[in-house]
Amino acid sequence: MPYVSPLQDFRFTLNELAGLNEILALPGFGDVTPDLVDAILQENGRFVEQAVAPLNVPGDTQPPVWKDGQVTTTPGYAQGFKDYAAGGWQGLQHPQEWGGQGLPKLVAAAPSENIQAASLAFSLCPMLTDGVIEALLTVGSEAQRKEYVPNLIAGKWTGTMNLTEPQAGSDLAQVATRAVRQDDGTFRLFGQKIFITFGEHDLAENIIHLVLARTPDAPAGVKGISLFIVPKFLVDANGAVGKRNDVWCASLEHKLGIHGSPTAVLLYGTGQGEVGEGAVGYQVGELNRGLEYMFIMMNAARYSVGQQGIGVSERAYQHALAYARERVQGRAVEGSPGPVAIVRHPDVQRMLLTMKALTEAARAVSYVTAAAHDKGTHHPDPEQRSRNRAFYEYMVPIVKGYSTETAVEVASLGIQVHGGMGFIEETGAAQFYRDARILPIYEGTTAIQANDLVGRKTQRDGGATAYAAIAAMRETLRAVEAESTRAAAPERDALRLLRDNLDGAIQAYEAGVGFILEQSASNVRAVFSSSVPYLMLAGVVHGGWQMARAVLACRKHLAAGSTDPFYRTKIATGLFYAAHILPRALALSAAVRAGVVADACGAAADIA
Amino acid sequence: MPYVSPLQDFRFTLNELAGLNEILALPGFGDVTPDLVDAILQENGRFVEQAVAPLNVPGDTQPPVWKDGQVTTTPGYAQGFKDYAAGGWQGLQHPQEWGGQGLPKLVAAAPSENIQAASLAFSLCPMLTDGVIEALLTVGSEAQRKEYVPNLIAGKWTGTMNLTEPQAGSDLAQVATRAVRQDDGTFRLFGQKIFITFGEHDLAENIIHLVLARTPDAPAGVKGISLFIVPKFLVDANGAVGKRNDVWCASLEHKLGIHGSPTAVLLYGTGQGEVGEGAVGYQVGELNRGLEYMFIMMNAARYSVGQQGIGVSERAYQHALAYARERVQGRAVEGSPGPVAIVRHPDVQRMLLTMKALTEAARAVSYVTAAAHDKGTHHPDPEQRSRNRAFYEYMVPIVKGYSTETAVEVASLGIQVHGGMGFIEETGAAQFYRDARILPIYEGTTAIQANDLVGRKTQRDGGATAYAAIAAMRETLRAVEAESTRAAAPERDALRLLRDNLDGAIQAYEAGVGFILEQSASNVRAVFSSSVPYLMLAGVVHGGWQMARAVLACRKHLAAGSTDPFYRTKIATGLFYAAHILPRALALSAAVRAGVVADACGAAADIA
Repeated sequence: MPYVSPLQDFRFTLNELAGLNEILALPGFGDVTPDLVDAILQENGRFVEQAVAPLNVPGDTQPPVWKDGQVTTTPGYAQGFKDYAAGGWQGLQHPQEWGGQGLPKLVAAAPSENIQAASLAFSLCPMLTDGVIEALLTVGSEAQRKEYVPNLIAGKWTGTMNLTEPQAGSDLAQVATRAVRQDDGTFRLFGQKIFITFGEHDLAENIIHLVLARTPDAPAGVKGISLFIVPKFLVDANGAVGKRNDVWCASLEHKLGIHGSPTAVLLYGTGQGEVGEGAVGYQVGELNRGLEYMFIMMNAARYSVGQQGIGVSERAYQHALAYARERVQGRAVEGSPGPVAIVRHPDVQRMLLTMKALTEAARAVSYVTAAAHDKGTHHPDPEQRSRNRAFYEYMVPIVKGYSTETAVEVASLGIQVHGGMGFIEETGAAQFYRDARILPIYEGTTAIQANDLVGRKTQRDGGATAYAAIAAMRETLRAVEAESTRAAAPERDALRLLRDNLDGAIQAYEAGVGFILEQSASNVRAVFSSSVPYLMLAGVVHGGWQMARAVLACRKHLAAGSTDPFYRTKIATGLFYAAHILPRALALSAAVRAGVVADACGAAADIA
Repeated sequence: MPYVSPLQDFRFTLNELAGLNEILALPGFGDVTPDLVDAILQENGRFVEQAVAPLNVPGDTQPPVWKDGQVTTTPGYAQGFKDYAAGGWQGLQHPQEWGGQGLPKLVAAAPSENIQAASLAFSLCPMLTDGVIEALLTVGSEAQRKEYVPNLIAGKWTGTMNLTEPQAGSDLAQVATRAVRQDDGTFRLFGQKIFITFGEHDLAENIIHLVLARTPDAPAGVKGISLFIVPKFLVDANGAVGKRNDVWCASLEHKLGIHGSPTAVLLYGTGQGEVGEGAVGYQVGELNRGLEYMFIMMNAARYSVGQQGIGVSERAYQHALAYARERVQGRAVEGSPGPVAIVRHPDVQRMLLTMKALTEAARAVSYVTAAAHDKGTHHPDPEQRSRNRAFYEYMVPIVKGYSTETAVEVASLGIQVHGGMGFIEETGAAQFYRDARILPIYEGTTAIQANDLVGRKTQRDGGATAYAAIAAMRETLRAVEAESTRAAAPERDALRLLRDNLDGAIQAYEAGVGFILEQSASNVRAVFSSSVPYLMLAGVVHGGWQMARAVLACRKHLAAGSTDPFYRTKIATGLFYAAHILPRALALSAAVRAGVVADACGAAADIA
């Protein structure tokens, strides 16, 4: 089943919901024109369909092989990464002075999502490399940037993030890898890192590891963690690859999904390299600020993982839709002379529309979030910058958490649409279900996102950002109300349903925010019992808000005489979201607010 | 992670919710005493933990191997099945006159769930054999029963159900396997069947296939399908295994989960056997009534698959809870001197309690349903029989659909509790996620269950059975209300939450039933768009009803002076269900009732 880049939905969402033109008009993006954006989308669409999408199944069935510390990746991956680098895709959102293209985050969003949709496992290597580039540009020294960034952007080298250790997963306070200062100012690292994505591979001539470690005299906990550059091969004075460093891949994990992505156990300082004992590392920024630096990468990486959720959802949807159009089974409910394609059956339609609605809503939310990032960085008005930055930061855990939790749901529905065939691996639907399952876990579990949303993003500003979003939602609500009075039945009824369900969902969200704020001082356990339902509540309602805006935009085009079927389909998808997804806000809000009562009765205590 | 049979929850649910004593008092079960039931539970618990549970991981990692038409099962499976047979477990619910133990369905329910929890893949062989026994006892001739049933109950032979063909999955009207009558009254079968669970294996000396096929002059569609017995080896006049029949395993499927269970492609009539061309088959019952006969098996099999959902959920929960108690990571939200076991974190508790609450609610619903089966069959009062039979039939699609959909959710949460380790296959959590995914598909997808629930079980009796259940729920609601007035804070608040949320859920359910009935004539598409949400709505509310009954029963024991911590934990689980699960009824009911509006706007049409 070939993957087709959803260019029309990309364009619609960029233009009608995320305000592409406003972003392009910001200072600093002067040379990025709408035509250029469209050329990028088209070229990216072609590249992804031809070069990346065909790597997805081989990655699953012929995963990388470890032998004597060397990793041979899936056949085709090396060529794919070469093409990726040659196309300049690694530099999309990085500054032009370093060899990138300096595009707004909003413009990079669609190509980035599209590559991840085409092959989640493959795209992890570029994604991690992006994070390393961003960290070095932000906190690396000028010499470090010069040494590494151009080669990373050129795809000559790749990057990794080394956080996790066996005893330190979500809890980075427990990082134990040691970094010992040498007389020449470099460090030697000793320790074990696990779950290192593309920690060893044969796609590029060097791998630049960013490693969290602890100097001998560092304070305990997260305030004693520093960040180091540890290249697989040291870089000589001419910038060429030199001695083999003392960092080694001991094994690869046997995972449920994303088989194409080698997940490495890395050993630092076993003494087998050409540098003596200890992996040579270079301090990044100041000592003991490593965690803070990692968070710079993390926000970008979390946003990207959210996009992976949207990408996997899109691909699972396309796969299921194609099967449903082709598979003939059973009569139509209204009666039919012979069997019909299963896409005609109401419940198959319900499943497909659920998949489509969740995917498109999450996409819209993520692009609106990217636009806020660009305004937060480039808007000339400081008040606008600050407001947009706050919105971006509020939305990142939602983009990450909601888009990935729904990706698991969408991929599961994708199997269900296939019936028994969905359970057969060769059908391909099962891969999305397996791949998607990592998304709510890595780069911070949904609970970690939710704690961030509750603590830093909701309580810290007293709910100001959340309430500002709610006020903006109510403007959309009034516009839906006005539109419903202009429409005739049955469309009027449908718009009223949209209005009613959006209204109810906004109220449910407001009540959830209120609960989080009220209980934050008195009952911290109740708040954190409610944090994931609160994140999901926010996701449902923000998705519904964007779908309502989409419905209004489409109706405007139809009223202006457009006959493009895209608009009718989008309206139907938006109404479906209102009918089937928005009511989840009622259940989630009740769960948020009930946390304290259940807790009071010792529900939690009995488990522990 | 060893599996532990949840005997205390079995006992509580049997006695306090499903009315075990009432069932044992029914005519025909005179020799089944409470002591015997407990001895069975204990012996089953031991057997399952020692002989079946250890087969679960090997089945996954060393699946059966096909070679030249022969299938070698996972090491240990043959011994496990021998022990199963020797323990008399195959005969649990079959009549004593045929070598079984003739237990009520309710008494067989717990051991049956327990075996399926211990190893889903392994237990499929006995489950299918049960179906064949039940079909032969119901519609087989006396000679056929004598020929096959004792050996099936003794575990000497096993059975399969052959329905699916490549073009005939959910749509059995398209069955094309041919059955040609011979002069001696036997038939010869020709065709291909797929997805045949344990269709070929080495666990027993013979395999008795029940096969749907079509005689040359049969009417088209489902009214021309007949049922045939096709043994792998013909049975000679002395009841011994004789000539190899013309049915062959062409290959096994490569599946997402339940790897231990060989899923066979069977070819009938390729001419390679010792019987000439065509598989020898024997007509069961009357010609052209095959589908009806299959449905006899189907209700029992659907109930069993629902139990599989509960079993997988139980095992996934135990696995996650053990990990959460052991894994140390992060500080307690209230502050703690050092890192704590993750079971102390509020969101881990939320996930574990969701898993536990969904599992125990589904178990309670399934046992109450089994009790209705027994009363529907054995109660001396015809009115009681009829009412209970109607309730049983209403509940079977709910037991099947809801318990399996929630099993996917529970298994997915089980991975999430493990964090990154959950994605590593060796951890074991991923197997439950893969295994569980077949459950909402086989023996009729959730949509098939939901259509049955809507059509035959709700509309046909004008909602009488559903409304009777709702009336009974309201009695429980009044009891909760009364109990809340007797309690002091904070328990009073918690009981009020239970009352409020149960009240809201019952109203939501009632509105859903009303919609299904009102729209059944005018808008068949809207009704079938709403059928799965209606099934899930019914599942949520029936589960909440039983959990409310559980809370009341436990409070009675505590009030009587019991200090058993089981009661406190069960109360907490019931309150958690009320707080976090019951509100889903609001969202599902809204989705049920909105179906017609979204449909009117062409949501569905645009997909097709």
